[in-house]
Amino acid sequence: MNTGVLDILLVEDNPFDAELTLRALKEIKILNHIQVLTDGEEAINYIFGLGEYEGRDLNLSPKVIFLDLKLPKIDGLEVLKKVKSDERTKSIPIVIVTSSQEEKDVVKSYKLGVNSYVVKPVDSNKFIEAIREIGFYWLILNQPPN
Amino acid sequence: MNTGVLDILLVEDNPFDAELTLRALKEIKILNHIQVLTDGEEAINYIFGLGEYEGRDLNLSPKVIFLDLKLPKIDGLEVLKKVKSDERTKSIPIVIVTSSQEEKDVVKSYKLGVNSYVVKPVDSNKFIEAIREIGFYWLILNQPPN
Repeated sequence: MNTGVLDILLVEDNPFDAELTLRALKEIKILNHIQVLTDGEEAINYIFGLGEYEGRDLNLSPKVIFLDLKLPKIDGLEVLKKVKSDERTKSIPIVIVTSSQEEKDVVKSYKLGVNSYVVKPVDSNKFIEAIREIGFYWLILNQPPN
Repeated sequence: MNTGVLDILLVEDNPFDAELTLRALKEIKILNHIQVLTDGEEAINYIFGLGEYEGRDLNLSPKVIFLDLKLPKIDGLEVLKKVKSDERTKSIPIVIVTSSQEEKDVVKSYKLGVNSYVVKPVDSNKFIEAIREIGFYWLILNQPPN
């Protein structure tokens, strides 16, 4: 459990994609402050300080959440909905990073208030390049709410 | 009046910053599909098809709106609020691009549902570089809602 500063909360159940993401972020030197969770239920517990994360200081919000859509237990759209409909957490930037290009997923994500929606490139090198760009954008260029 | 495909709606009253923005976007070859407006009232009229923009096809939404905060007539936060509180327009990504680093502006923007908030670098070259990154992110990486 990380109780210090947190740059990125990565919610990703695919170990290969998580590994590539960490590698890409390491290249832009922001690997130290990332928390990886592998299902939607743990993500909700972490974000709201529930279950195993009870007592976590909720003021220590991540600067951005990278959220997959297809997740075990609770899916990404449900996590998005919960975070964006709660006054305590709605300002946390969420980027959906998914292999789904389905229009219904894109449209629903925006309706629920997602900050950005990125489709994972299939090619590994392009995926790493995209993660590098996304990491740079949300950690260097974007001004987080806290 | 542009009735075709629109990539970026730029709402910026400072001609120097608008010029630098156009130059940066030209370098990543997306200059053809940009509409520049210089005050908040015209922005609202454009986005909602009012006044001089009555009859504009509202289905032709920009992929992203770059919105300054300090604007003549109606300020940026008011434009943001109107767009994000209307079901017809709330999904359009809005990036605040401003010189204001004031925490109250940042916090309020996120509360109103801004997608991203970027502080303009003071140095012109860094400003151009930032616009290039922002343009690339929202036009190439991000999947827009339509």
